[in-house]
Amino acid sequence: MSGVGAPSRLLIRDLEQLATPRGSEAPLRRAALGDVEVIEHAYLLCEGDRIAAVGRMADLGTLDGDVAELDGRGRCAVPGLVDCHTHACFGGDRVEEFALRAAGAGYEELHAAGGGILSTVGATRAAGEDGLRAAVRRHRSWMLAAGTTTFESKSGYGLDRDTELTSLRVIADEGGIPTWLGAHAVPPEFDTADAYLDFALAEVLPAAAELAEAADVFLERGAFDAAQARRYLEACSKAGLALRLHGDQFTESGAIPLALELGARSVDHLEATGDEGVRALARSEVVGVLLPASALFLGRPMPPGHALVEAGAAVALATDFNPGSAFCESLPLVCSLAATQLRLSPAQALSAVTVNAAHVLGRADRKGRLACGYDADIVLLDAPDWRYLAYHLAGRVVSETVVAGVPSRLG
Amino acid sequence: MSGVGAPSRLLIRDLEQLATPRGSEAPLRRAALGDVEVIEHAYLLCEGDRIAAVGRMADLGTLDGDVAELDGRGRCAVPGLVDCHTHACFGGDRVEEFALRAAGAGYEELHAAGGGILSTVGATRAAGEDGLRAAVRRHRSWMLAAGTTTFESKSGYGLDRDTELTSLRVIADEGGIPTWLGAHAVPPEFDTADAYLDFALAEVLPAAAELAEAADVFLERGAFDAAQARRYLEACSKAGLALRLHGDQFTESGAIPLALELGARSVDHLEATGDEGVRALARSEVVGVLLPASALFLGRPMPPGHALVEAGAAVALATDFNPGSAFCESLPLVCSLAATQLRLSPAQALSAVTVNAAHVLGRADRKGRLACGYDADIVLLDAPDWRYLAYHLAGRVVSETVVAGVPSRLG
Repeated sequence: MSGVGAPSRLLIRDLEQLATPRGSEAPLRRAALGDVEVIEHAYLLCEGDRIAAVGRMADLGTLDGDVAELDGRGRCAVPGLVDCHTHACFGGDRVEEFALRAAGAGYEELHAAGGGILSTVGATRAAGEDGLRAAVRRHRSWMLAAGTTTFESKSGYGLDRDTELTSLRVIADEGGIPTWLGAHAVPPEFDTADAYLDFALAEVLPAAAELAEAADVFLERGAFDAAQARRYLEACSKAGLALRLHGDQFTESGAIPLALELGARSVDHLEATGDEGVRALARSEVVGVLLPASALFLGRPMPPGHALVEAGAAVALATDFNPGSAFCESLPLVCSLAATQLRLSPAQALSAVTVNAAHVLGRADRKGRLACGYDADIVLLDAPDWRYLAYHLAGRVVSETVVAGVPSRLG
Repeated sequence: MSGVGAPSRLLIRDLEQLATPRGSEAPLRRAALGDVEVIEHAYLLCEGDRIAAVGRMADLGTLDGDVAELDGRGRCAVPGLVDCHTHACFGGDRVEEFALRAAGAGYEELHAAGGGILSTVGATRAAGEDGLRAAVRRHRSWMLAAGTTTFESKSGYGLDRDTELTSLRVIADEGGIPTWLGAHAVPPEFDTADAYLDFALAEVLPAAAELAEAADVFLERGAFDAAQARRYLEACSKAGLALRLHGDQFTESGAIPLALELGARSVDHLEATGDEGVRALARSEVVGVLLPASALFLGRPMPPGHALVEAGAAVALATDFNPGSAFCESLPLVCSLAATQLRLSPAQALSAVTVNAAHVLGRADRKGRLACGYDADIVLLDAPDWRYLAYHLAGRVVSETVVAGVPSRLG
């Protein structure tokens, strides 16, 4: 019976495989990280915007009433991917800087050529609300085509009151989960990091805390040091924001101890993290967010993914999508890099881009799994085996994405 | 005037940019490799299957008669990409081996688990002509979506007479340029490489030479040594085939000296090539074909791309698409890897995946450039700058492909 007002139903039938991570109260680690459940010859039933049932085709009973159907033959279902670390709200690009770097230019030359974060700050301030809205919408459509159904985006290319708040509003309006990256760089109108933080915490934080879910800081030589990061994060925490940190990207600068002390949700990057940092993170509840596309894009060393997983750390994977150091929205590429560069298994990579990423965003009760009651966000892979998600390097492996029970066919 | 029988015309107008390598009698090297011509706000006119004109919109005169139009706003045109090294004709996949390798399995374990080239030989023999045709067709559609309008494919997963000849026929039927890789591995029914070569040269070569344009050999420890490679290539040369070599992938095994001596078109891989090999190749007419997606896929060192270019070698870039060591059909990804891992500029990478790749395939008079008289094979990029081809890492940067003057919109 499908009465007036009954939720619409969508049946995805005859799937080659359905693969989903296990559920848990806390981010998955150790054996649970790679313990993906795979159902062969499967179906998945959505009711409205939720998953109502998953199982083997052989166990699918008769469905009364109206049910839309999707043909799963030749395809596999995995949870809609969750990108827990992006910088998707910016004006302009950095293709000139990219070309100069490929030709061998170093940091100084790039800076002299007008490159770096501050060049994007200029373009972002100039873009205006309409320009930023169009940019986030375009980036979101790219993400969706790559299977990302939930994304976080940071602000951090405005660094003045209006542009930071506009960025957070636009991100939320376009379906993203906004993080206030008020401490990304020191804008040109301030002489010191401390003077800028005085302004940001007094003038921007009160309104940013109403718009964002979390705060983030770029703790790195040349950006903000550990004392400045602590000051920023403590103020943000008091204002009700969850905490995250960019840490150990180029140098070990104390991000992991600070993240542990302040109870941050995550510390992100970790390319420079050594054995002691690996052990400390593994003993904690803080998630290590690995961004291998950024390391690839910059031609830098990869983060110690295998060591973190072996030590028992909870890890997530994300794109770091941004114009300067990772112009890449593809979580499937990130899964390929995890398997080939970080020595994570495809199953560990899947958990890291779904349920663990959802934990970082405080959404693990609804996102990141194909299970009854979860949001009906689903990726259909053009593949006979779900592990093509990592195996089919830079391929058009995502054939269709379902968001809140609504399919949108891709090319 | 568009009379009966006049060629159909297609005008691509209002392009943000049109970028094309320079033409040359020989493969581009040194400064010419990176000397891409860029026309801002450009048009491109096709007549039938050829390019009739390119230029600035400001210089576009009135066109009489019927002309189909494509809107180039927000897009850039580059030549249809040329993939000069693939293994696209195979049955099955190697996703299980991929997952085991990610989990840390070494070569011995993979072999014990039934992995390696011979597992694909079994699946390819079992696929039959229809199965292989469907596979090549599917792989070709993936390549086209990634901007590849001309592709070479090797045989080499049959290694018996019927399957090798069927592979070459299917590759040609599906629009590929066939290379006989008769010396890929020693199939299980032969005890020694020499015994297998006796068979291959006596029983397969005469018919293969009628179907293929070139011959290729896997010169590597555990496959064929330099003496065996010489014997195979000399026989193939006598039968009229152009010569190519897989060389220096894992070890320096004498491929470069042999390629130079025999006048091969290319030596491909070169991950293990040292300074002496770089210098020797740079002094020669042989093209070095670099396959960075394969190095990435296997988590191995990259080939010395920057050193080769600096030394003055002619280089091409290709995917190495195959199920075991590079399940990747994306030349845009290869361009991104060239820029980020090999330190080639985007312009050098473009020349390497177009005109230089066309030289390797003996097609440089018709393929690899956007210039009057060349084949109307065109890639339209969803980008304001053509260098997004390398910059937009694993993005859906190819928005449309034109083959022989006929557009096919992609998703």
